[in-house]
Amino acid sequence: MAETVIKHDGRDYTEDQLFYLINEIKDYQIVHGSLIKGIQFETESSVPSRPVGASILPTPFPRSSFEEACELQQAFNELYMRASSDPDWLYSILEPLMGHDDLFAALWETYIKVRGAGVAQNAVCAIFRSDYMLHKMSNDEEVSLKQVEMNTFSCAGACHADRIAAMQHHLARVKAPEAITKLGRSKNTQSIVNLLKTAHETYKTNATSDIPKCVLITVQPFNFNIADERPIEHGLWDAGVPCYRCEWQNIRDRTILTEDRTLLFRPPIGIVELEVSVVYHRAGYEIEEYDDQGREARLRLEMSRAIKCPDILTHLTGFKSVQQALIQEGAVERFLPPDEAAKVRKTFMPMQILDTQAAGLEARKTALDPERAVNYILKPNLEGGGHNVYRSDIAEFLKLRPQEEWHKYVLMRLIEPPPSTGTIVMPEALYHGAVVSELGILGTCLWQRRSGAGGELEIKHNEVVGWTFKTKPAGVDEMSVVKGYGVFDCPLLVD
Amino acid sequence: MAETVIKHDGRDYTEDQLFYLINEIKDYQIVHGSLIKGIQFETESSVPSRPVGASILPTPFPRSSFEEACELQQAFNELYMRASSDPDWLYSILEPLMGHDDLFAALWETYIKVRGAGVAQNAVCAIFRSDYMLHKMSNDEEVSLKQVEMNTFSCAGACHADRIAAMQHHLARVKAPEAITKLGRSKNTQSIVNLLKTAHETYKTNATSDIPKCVLITVQPFNFNIADERPIEHGLWDAGVPCYRCEWQNIRDRTILTEDRTLLFRPPIGIVELEVSVVYHRAGYEIEEYDDQGREARLRLEMSRAIKCPDILTHLTGFKSVQQALIQEGAVERFLPPDEAAKVRKTFMPMQILDTQAAGLEARKTALDPERAVNYILKPNLEGGGHNVYRSDIAEFLKLRPQEEWHKYVLMRLIEPPPSTGTIVMPEALYHGAVVSELGILGTCLWQRRSGAGGELEIKHNEVVGWTFKTKPAGVDEMSVVKGYGVFDCPLLVD
Repeated sequence: MAETVIKHDGRDYTEDQLFYLINEIKDYQIVHGSLIKGIQFETESSVPSRPVGASILPTPFPRSSFEEACELQQAFNELYMRASSDPDWLYSILEPLMGHDDLFAALWETYIKVRGAGVAQNAVCAIFRSDYMLHKMSNDEEVSLKQVEMNTFSCAGACHADRIAAMQHHLARVKAPEAITKLGRSKNTQSIVNLLKTAHETYKTNATSDIPKCVLITVQPFNFNIADERPIEHGLWDAGVPCYRCEWQNIRDRTILTEDRTLLFRPPIGIVELEVSVVYHRAGYEIEEYDDQGREARLRLEMSRAIKCPDILTHLTGFKSVQQALIQEGAVERFLPPDEAAKVRKTFMPMQILDTQAAGLEARKTALDPERAVNYILKPNLEGGGHNVYRSDIAEFLKLRPQEEWHKYVLMRLIEPPPSTGTIVMPEALYHGAVVSELGILGTCLWQRRSGAGGELEIKHNEVVGWTFKTKPAGVDEMSVVKGYGVFDCPLLVD
Repeated sequence: MAETVIKHDGRDYTEDQLFYLINEIKDYQIVHGSLIKGIQFETESSVPSRPVGASILPTPFPRSSFEEACELQQAFNELYMRASSDPDWLYSILEPLMGHDDLFAALWETYIKVRGAGVAQNAVCAIFRSDYMLHKMSNDEEVSLKQVEMNTFSCAGACHADRIAAMQHHLARVKAPEAITKLGRSKNTQSIVNLLKTAHETYKTNATSDIPKCVLITVQPFNFNIADERPIEHGLWDAGVPCYRCEWQNIRDRTILTEDRTLLFRPPIGIVELEVSVVYHRAGYEIEEYDDQGREARLRLEMSRAIKCPDILTHLTGFKSVQQALIQEGAVERFLPPDEAAKVRKTFMPMQILDTQAAGLEARKTALDPERAVNYILKPNLEGGGHNVYRSDIAEFLKLRPQEEWHKYVLMRLIEPPPSTGTIVMPEALYHGAVVSELGILGTCLWQRRSGAGGELEIKHNEVVGWTFKTKPAGVDEMSVVKGYGVFDCPLLVD
């Protein structure tokens, strides 16, 4: 960094001032729990934690694109609520994956069993996060907002985003109060609490027993990201809703499904037995979780009368194949009115599953040609991200796999963000330079399926609640803050 | 611990349940910043932190003693406000220390210079913490509340106490909701913010310049206890009061004293210059801080028109010699009406400075006799604690020092707490067994000295705001949570 003076939003910052800010940030993160739990160093009585990666100065983002993304979210919420309520359509999209994707197979098999027994709960709730990047192919083109993916299950980052936004607001008070109106505000945590409370109360309205009710959060063991989950749990208690966590592998032992499909939970302490009103999933998205015990656990939850946040059908809509299918002509239009569909469609990037249909075969050619592949990204159909292959690496990656497995991947046109400069704290050092940001818009939904599994539905709640904003050095392909590839950030909205 | 079942407040806890609670506690502490910063492992971009020691189950404490301590605090506040406003009395008490105690000498010298120049600010504010333990000498005696010491400068623990209280309230919701009414509530942080804001506004009322005003917190460098300070700083900003920290060694460079005794502060970032309304000390209590630069810094702050929280005279009332002097006949009665004085006096334990007066010589005999010394503790006159010598160690300790230095110590009758059982997280392991708790009652004060240094004063603010509650294994003499000798706790008030 040397003695460089950085210019940011009309102010100069010396190196000393950036280090002053880093110290303020470290302390802010410590006292506000903006941390990653160091589970690898955990002892019986103690455990260290470290600040999650954060921006030092908020990264600029066009206000119009930010507002466009927020305005789109209700349509996206509705699109995915409706897609999840159309199992025949979903099956037609996902069926080709059956033999190729173990996670899809495990989930679909569970769904079929539940449908066979009759769906006991028609209300579903969900927290969606639609991720976007800015796209600008050449100088003569306008910057546009493009969807990276839609997350429909166990969306992370909501609590982290709230704290980093609050931190950047605090720093603005100290260093540049005039910038406060440009900083996005975020109330994700409280909004998620409100959704789960609404679902809890919906359940209670129709409940007949006098067993105390609770929200149950399924969580992964050895969890380093508790700071993104615990605030929701504590927030529910503060809102008068008992809430317990259960690690995925303990669900079988700690829950009971009664004859009338009531789900009971036996917490390790306190009350002997509670009736679960809402199951909120923060686990169950990795194939490793679906051994025999894991399948039995998911089936039990899904069979129950508890409202799932979300249920399996909604979980399935997060597969890349669904995103790819929605791009096809008429697909969005199946679920949304024409004007809404057109707005949503504007954010789509070309995307093609590598199947053996004509378009799939054409995409395979592109993927295998390192020169043409330079504008592409290969994504597995699994939700969650993190296993992407980029550009000229795609050909080699595919060649190492049998062609029958290419089906499992989707080839997507790379989003090409316009140049942007950021100043962020990376795990090893301060970074100032070219960056890429990703904006996630969070939506909360609660809907009632008419016939348990038909396409008809009644929307009870459809809200845009907030955002996550992540920034990484431009040279880094993967975006995963908790793994150290980027930072949580707050958009500085520029007109 | 084996398979032991612990009984606590009418419920049984298995070992598994205690470990479940410890995990809940770790996570609660991480997401609420109930942490110690691991400054020894700090890097440019990151720093680890660990949960501060905490009780697993709230330790029982008699409600009547808790309430007695709270009720006493206004009288103690007034006693110390008045003692600090009587410099002649203070000097008569402390003068014998002049040659022996470098810290007292440095502070007194500063005060004399300020008095010589004329005191520029008659308003003073302070945060006091009166510490108590329960005392029960034998079976035929009632349990009574005895004062350990009065802290008048840079009182710590207020923010930690708030979070541990909130944590025990949260755990009670989960495990034993019927106990919630027995748990003390604490709002220390907000009350301290309110006091400093009131002082800030008092200053502004009389200010003539239009330079923006701020509260300045003096802090120590390499500070591992930021989680006990930062919430006050952030709380002030939230209350609309700009607040900056300045490390003790940087005060000289970052402040300017104008001709009219206005204190200006130049923060490292943002606004170029602010006028300091209130100086809140969280540094300046160790002799090592009073090198030439440190003396100059303290003198500059003390000379200024800023309201000090607290000023030097109030700082001096925290010396053990003052506590010892107040025990003498007529001393409390000099400052408080007889009924108030009597209540305060009930909490005093016998205490004698080891001087060469008759009583001092008698105390020396006790101290040097290991058999008689078994009921005594030797304390240096310095505020802050941490250098105490216990029981039969006292004789050897004194013999290693020249008799001219014995003056620097006070011999105090040991408080003997009745047996109590606690379950706490120590740095190395879970501890269940005999414990001793210390209750600190926090008071906030703002007063106006009539003539700058006379005994006359007008009390503007005298409040009891909350408490700290610390518990340690009975075998450990020292009580310092941040050093790992005990834990922050929440009293379970028993009738």
